[in-house]
Amino acid sequence: MKSKIKKIGVFTSGGDSPGMNAAIRAVVRTCAYLKVDCVGIYRGYQGMIEADFKPMDARSVNNIINKGGTILKSARCDDFRTAEGRKKAYDNLIAEGIDALVVIGGDGSFTGAMVFNKEYDFPIIGIPGTIDNDIFGTSNTLGFDTATNTVVEIIDKIRDTASSHNRLFFVEVMGRDVGHIALNVGVGAGAEEILIPEENLGLERLLESLKRSKKSGKSSSIVVVAEGDKTGENVFELKDYVEKHLPIYDVRVSVLGHLQRGGAPSCFDRVLASRMGVKAVESLLEGKSNFMVGIQNNEITLTPISKAIKGHTKIDKELIRVSDIMTT
Amino acid sequence: MKSKIKKIGVFTSGGDSPGMNAAIRAVVRTCAYLKVDCVGIYRGYQGMIEADFKPMDARSVNNIINKGGTILKSARCDDFRTAEGRKKAYDNLIAEGIDALVVIGGDGSFTGAMVFNKEYDFPIIGIPGTIDNDIFGTSNTLGFDTATNTVVEIIDKIRDTASSHNRLFFVEVMGRDVGHIALNVGVGAGAEEILIPEENLGLERLLESLKRSKKSGKSSSIVVVAEGDKTGENVFELKDYVEKHLPIYDVRVSVLGHLQRGGAPSCFDRVLASRMGVKAVESLLEGKSNFMVGIQNNEITLTPISKAIKGHTKIDKELIRVSDIMTT
Amino acid sequence: MKSKIKKIGVFTSGGDSPGMNAAIRAVVRTCAYLKVDCVGIYRGYQGMIEADFKPMDARSVNNIINKGGTILKSARCDDFRTAEGRKKAYDNLIAEGIDALVVIGGDGSFTGAMVFNKEYDFPIIGIPGTIDNDIFGTSNTLGFDTATNTVVEIIDKIRDTASSHNRLFFVEVMGRDVGHIALNVGVGAGAEEILIPEENLGLERLLESLKRSKKSGKSSSIVVVAEGDKTGENVFELKDYVEKHLPIYDVRVSVLGHLQRGGAPSCFDRVLASRMGVKAVESLLEGKSNFMVGIQNNEITLTPISKAIKGHTKIDKELIRVSDIMTT
Amino acid sequence: MKSKIKKIGVFTSGGDSPGMNAAIRAVVRTCAYLKVDCVGIYRGYQGMIEADFKPMDARSVNNIINKGGTILKSARCDDFRTAEGRKKAYDNLIAEGIDALVVIGGDGSFTGAMVFNKEYDFPIIGIPGTIDNDIFGTSNTLGFDTATNTVVEIIDKIRDTASSHNRLFFVEVMGRDVGHIALNVGVGAGAEEILIPEENLGLERLLESLKRSKKSGKSSSIVVVAEGDKTGENVFELKDYVEKHLPIYDVRVSVLGHLQRGGAPSCFDRVLASRMGVKAVESLLEGKSNFMVGIQNNEITLTPISKAIKGHTKIDKELIRVSDIMTT
Repeated sequence: MKSKIKKIGVFTSGGDSPGMNAAIRAVVRTCAYLKVDCVGIYRGYQGMIEADFKPMDARSVNNIINKGGTILKSARCDDFRTAEGRKKAYDNLIAEGIDALVVIGGDGSFTGAMVFNKEYDFPIIGIPGTIDNDIFGTSNTLGFDTATNTVVEIIDKIRDTASSHNRLFFVEVMGRDVGHIALNVGVGAGAEEILIPEENLGLERLLESLKRSKKSGKSSSIVVVAEGDKTGENVFELKDYVEKHLPIYDVRVSVLGHLQRGGAPSCFDRVLASRMGVKAVESLLEGKSNFMVGIQNNEITLTPISKAIKGHTKIDKELIRVSDIMTT
Repeated sequence: MKSKIKKIGVFTSGGDSPGMNAAIRAVVRTCAYLKVDCVGIYRGYQGMIEADFKPMDARSVNNIINKGGTILKSARCDDFRTAEGRKKAYDNLIAEGIDALVVIGGDGSFTGAMVFNKEYDFPIIGIPGTIDNDIFGTSNTLGFDTATNTVVEIIDKIRDTASSHNRLFFVEVMGRDVGHIALNVGVGAGAEEILIPEENLGLERLLESLKRSKKSGKSSSIVVVAEGDKTGENVFELKDYVEKHLPIYDVRVSVLGHLQRGGAPSCFDRVLASRMGVKAVESLLEGKSNFMVGIQNNEITLTPISKAIKGHTKIDKELIRVSDIMTT
Repeated sequence: MKSKIKKIGVFTSGGDSPGMNAAIRAVVRTCAYLKVDCVGIYRGYQGMIEADFKPMDARSVNNIINKGGTILKSARCDDFRTAEGRKKAYDNLIAEGIDALVVIGGDGSFTGAMVFNKEYDFPIIGIPGTIDNDIFGTSNTLGFDTATNTVVEIIDKIRDTASSHNRLFFVEVMGRDVGHIALNVGVGAGAEEILIPEENLGLERLLESLKRSKKSGKSSSIVVVAEGDKTGENVFELKDYVEKHLPIYDVRVSVLGHLQRGGAPSCFDRVLASRMGVKAVESLLEGKSNFMVGIQNNEITLTPISKAIKGHTKIDKELIRVSDIMTT
Repeated sequence: MKSKIKKIGVFTSGGDSPGMNAAIRAVVRTCAYLKVDCVGIYRGYQGMIEADFKPMDARSVNNIINKGGTILKSARCDDFRTAEGRKKAYDNLIAEGIDALVVIGGDGSFTGAMVFNKEYDFPIIGIPGTIDNDIFGTSNTLGFDTATNTVVEIIDKIRDTASSHNRLFFVEVMGRDVGHIALNVGVGAGAEEILIPEENLGLERLLESLKRSKKSGKSSSIVVVAEGDKTGENVFELKDYVEKHLPIYDVRVSVLGHLQRGGAPSCFDRVLASRMGVKAVESLLEGKSNFMVGIQNNEITLTPISKAIKGHTKIDKELIRVSDIMTT
């Protein structure tokens, strides 16, 4: 493959997600395979501004495919929002000889990349790394599959104690303003009710559903709540509301929080990361830019970054129906 | 929904796989939701012949979504290969009032179902339950995703000891005559080489690859071998061959075996099982028969059973290429 | 063994813990082995008052050794605090023919048992089932070992995200008014600081320790906080305090909560439960009463319940010292 | 603490076990805390002979407490069995300024250490790192607890498939010539029979036990076999024997092998490793030598290495009795 690209910089940005290291490894190894230089950029855009670079060869990514987090670290970077900050970043990249970038992150990271690309016509390919699955142009973001496994395992544990005590648990899971994690883990963990921002049915329906569940003989109940859901102000308010109006229940709350981002990636996420990393590098070498790598219908695809950040993958209406049937 | 179907029988057949219980639960709950009776048939076709039936309601499948194996058990059944055996099964079903079947299993189980359907015009829908992913008409069989996670976790552990001792491990994984598990866990676990039946490159290339790997500075090597692979007679022969021709390696063998079939299903497999179970029951009630439920492009689909058992899902050539690049 | 005891009742009480089912199984199987009848009492003292009994034989406890929670369920019971409630319980036990009890629970449950024993001279043996390890007369309560494994696995995940972002996490773990879980998981997870009720060193020392940790080049910090610790009002207050006085840190909080009680028990807890269950039944048959089974120096021992509930197993001072050295 | 020891070398030797890295970390951090230099020696005695040394400070062992295997690697070393090899090792240690050693390994490693100590009067303290638990003077070797958890989790999975098919599984586990792992995981996984070298009851009793188990209504059977057991030549022979004499069983074999050595250590093993590492360094600084650190009655103790390698921790007879009762 003949290409003008001689040295690719790779970095992670935004919230970390399992599979980011596998993607870094794939980018680095593909560069090595195609005899292109590769440089790791630490702490995202911040490291670009501070010239925090490190050359990476095939061996430098040994034994990271199964590690959570990101060896390149991640950070918020307000400086990159300024033209001055981006200028500094550009100068550093040029000084280092980097002539293309792979950014692994979410829509915030992609927005920064797009702005940078426009200003400096710098070749950029994005890999969607976030557990939230909230990016258009890919059925799975890196880390989503792992996060759903982490959460169902934990809800399985909470179910142990819930059913030993005939309790009701509200379990808050991540997902920013979308309900993908909540809907999937809700179905996967056999939750009695799932509250997601895409489908606010109100507190009344929740009460009725819980009454019905109790009547049907269920000894315990798990309600999965997406962090972006607006049925109540938050899970603690939900607890108070239900305890007030349905005193038959002994209610508990569990906010899972950041543990959802960690852990060894699932096989699916490792394979997906490997495929995406290969595609990202190859696309750059083919002269493409401003695309996000995605997986659609089991094929690795490219979507313009501008489209990827505008929309969300829609919530699966059929899965909501399945969820309703399962909680019979 | 108005339908002539009043009572559906559900059973598991062939080797068990994680997600079978989740599929049983989904069939039972969908029946309850649609107000159709549901009967569990124990030990597959054998239980049909012995009238080993048990009515199931929504509560009878509480707390099984996360259990490996199958609560309805499974068994080989030679009697069902005879017209006499099938007659007995038919008589028992009629006596019990069962007028449609959901069979959860692999291609052997589907073949039996098809024969039975032809002889007695008995409505049947299949759900693909096998870890091997070797059935046409679905990108994932139930249990495949879980099995790949189980295997990569174990290879991660083997890697600990392999890299502490600079060793070479041959790890044999399941998959009958296809290499789906091997290819995916090989990429997911960062294996140095993957041997699958679809792509026999010979012992020579294996030796060369291992030499190259050693030269590149890798301290340990994992070679994943599909049980159906024919590079060597078996993994033990591979070990002997490599030790003879590449004495630099201290070689070990690990045959993972049946542990790959067990364990709590992944979130993906639980959700998939739920979706498939709903579709199976609804399809029967719509008057459909002789189809297998599958997932294609994230949509739940129907494929004629006759087609499903004839072909295999093809191995992903692009993933083989990714694997080659990753082992740079 | 000749004994006046003919029928033993077994129940779980108080908060559930992993290993309770293994203990139930051991009690039931030992009764079967020694040809004594065994009755399961549901929902602790409440089930005793409501005569919620079920005869149990060896097969009725198949496949529960690896299950979290308690199949006999647990419940708070205010009625048992009244003489009237206990009278009802006694009458029910007599009517059922139960002439001895094995109670699996914590110190609250044991106190109830002791009162009941005094009033009615009813033979009782206790098995310490709680994750908190806060009972005198045993180096391990059932579930403590499992809970520490559950928590370190989760902190390992939190560490992934903490070190990807150079963050400080306060992780609150269970333990009521003792710090056993916190101290052990703190050392096991390599926490930078461990806050336990037994050793309040004040907010000042915490700040200094965190400053030192930052200076030493650590990229992230985990502080494990026992729920009974009084360094701050609670973990959220700790977060605010540190953010105010040490703005170099980006601080997050994780309250692990009830998930710590669930999950499959560790091998240690399963073996311990089996040994304790055997001892409990044999002790009753030998005419002993009012003792708690414990493990001390790897031997199964008996301690008067009155002593068990009065004291706590002391926190291991040497382990505190080890912890200080490890956070160098 | 005033001591003549100025620089301590630490190495791992023999088969790796989970917790070795945690012990390395503890040795390194304790040296840093006590302001003594610390040097890592790679690949055990081999690295000593080849002067494969690397200075280690507190930060060099960040994030390894939860890693399986050993970052210092391990290797067999025939050269160290010769006086010439040991001379070379001694010269290298002196040249590096190392004046004391901590060896983490099993009895083979300790024997080498003892010989070396006698020849050169070189201060040595041992930490028992092996999953087999076959060393006198400690109730737990590092890695034993983790290995038992790894094995019961896997047998739980095998049980899924065994009970779905009414099968009998022989599961071979590690342990060299002792049955500690087998006995503990056998009880912990609820095995129907446990075969250990310490108690050979013969093939006849095995058959009778399996017949009884079948008669009692159990649907599946797991027989745990220690690798050193001599009931049959090996597990495959046991399978053949049972299939011949008890054709009612469909028998399968699973040899778990090296995966038992890997994986993240349990909380117990991490804490134990930390305590042992502190004690090892402090003992050397106090002028002690030729001892093995152990845990007895929850206290960290010292045992002369000569005693440690002569005996085994005895198998727990009471636990064999518990096992017999549990398989009622």
